[in-house]
Amino acid sequence: MKHRIRELFDSQALLSDEEWELFVSKLEHKAFNKGAMILREGDVENYLSFIARGSARHYVYDAKCDEISVGFCSSGSFCSSYSSFIMQSPSSVNVEALEDIELLRMSYEDLQYLYSCSHTGERLGRINAELYLARKEEREIMLLTMSAQERYIHLLENNPKLLELVKLEHIATYLGITPQSLSRIRKAVAIS
Amino acid sequence: MKHRIRELFDSQALLSDEEWELFVSKLEHKAFNKGAMILREGDVENYLSFIARGSARHYVYDAKCDEISVGFCSSGSFCSSYSSFIMQSPSSVNVEALEDIELLRMSYEDLQYLYSCSHTGERLGRINAELYLARKEEREIMLLTMSAQERYIHLLENNPKLLELVKLEHIATYLGITPQSLSRIRKAVAIS
Repeated sequence: MKHRIRELFDSQALLSDEEWELFVSKLEHKAFNKGAMILREGDVENYLSFIARGSARHYVYDAKCDEISVGFCSSGSFCSSYSSFIMQSPSSVNVEALEDIELLRMSYEDLQYLYSCSHTGERLGRINAELYLARKEEREIMLLTMSAQERYIHLLENNPKLLELVKLEHIATYLGITPQSLSRIRKAVAIS
Repeated sequence: MKHRIRELFDSQALLSDEEWELFVSKLEHKAFNKGAMILREGDVENYLSFIARGSARHYVYDAKCDEISVGFCSSGSFCSSYSSFIMQSPSSVNVEALEDIELLRMSYEDLQYLYSCSHTGERLGRINAELYLARKEEREIMLLTMSAQERYIHLLENNPKLLELVKLEHIATYLGITPQSLSRIRKAVAIS
């Protein structure tokens, strides 16, 4: 599955073969079963992970200890508790395997080493941080300006597979609504 | 005010004097009066701006054409419509000067040139994108898990000056509540 990372990188900035080999030498393979916790709140995220197969959910606990989903990631994308990884501080986020999952991952120390060795590696880090930032800004604006129904339709159009994988209660918290509201919206959208 | 940018950079990664001189040569000074629009929704953000003096508000329009504040930036910080800048696509965000403001800014093209010239420049870009991303994640989690009163107290403790500069209706939308709810919370917090 390393070729998928290479394809992604090649579309952003070209690593030399030597830089790529160094990058690959630092990757480790790690598998988790469906339902396993990849990271728990309070632990420090030590890995930048790329999903080779499967998908995961990011969630936090609110004041009532209810789970609030804040993100989903699937095959072909990076998946870590980014703030914790960047700051090397305890994570606010839990990361759970939604199905059997295989990760290619790199430790914080190895990634810092690669950044120091390679200008292009640094560039790939910058570009991917920027892209993730742009997605976070888009989600914030969506949460603040779209109606619940508009947010559901946006999810349906952009990530229909998620609705098969994830319990509706988790989809509801991700959309910032109650499961009851989501049921009503789903009925309304199905009829229209 | 350039020394403030140098101090910030020096705490993150050390540019050589030559790299710093090249960076400074690409900066331009730009001033806006209080209330002026620094960027309007639909325009492409062409500048990465550092606030030398003053402060600004980022806002979007919701479906009812009401203004929803999504961020505030003040002296000593960067301030741009980041998604628009990164993607070079039309901005969803309006940027307004909250008081007379002076910016040191750099065009997208010049910044890309500096990135290509300097590994350390690329590193500074990565680090600042990561820090901004971590702040966005913190805000998302705050919006989803804290009560309105907790969000207000967090703002009061972390950015008390904002409450003097910004109309309460803008603070309210930033906290995701109505102005009436904010008035009730302010009274409750003042009494307690």
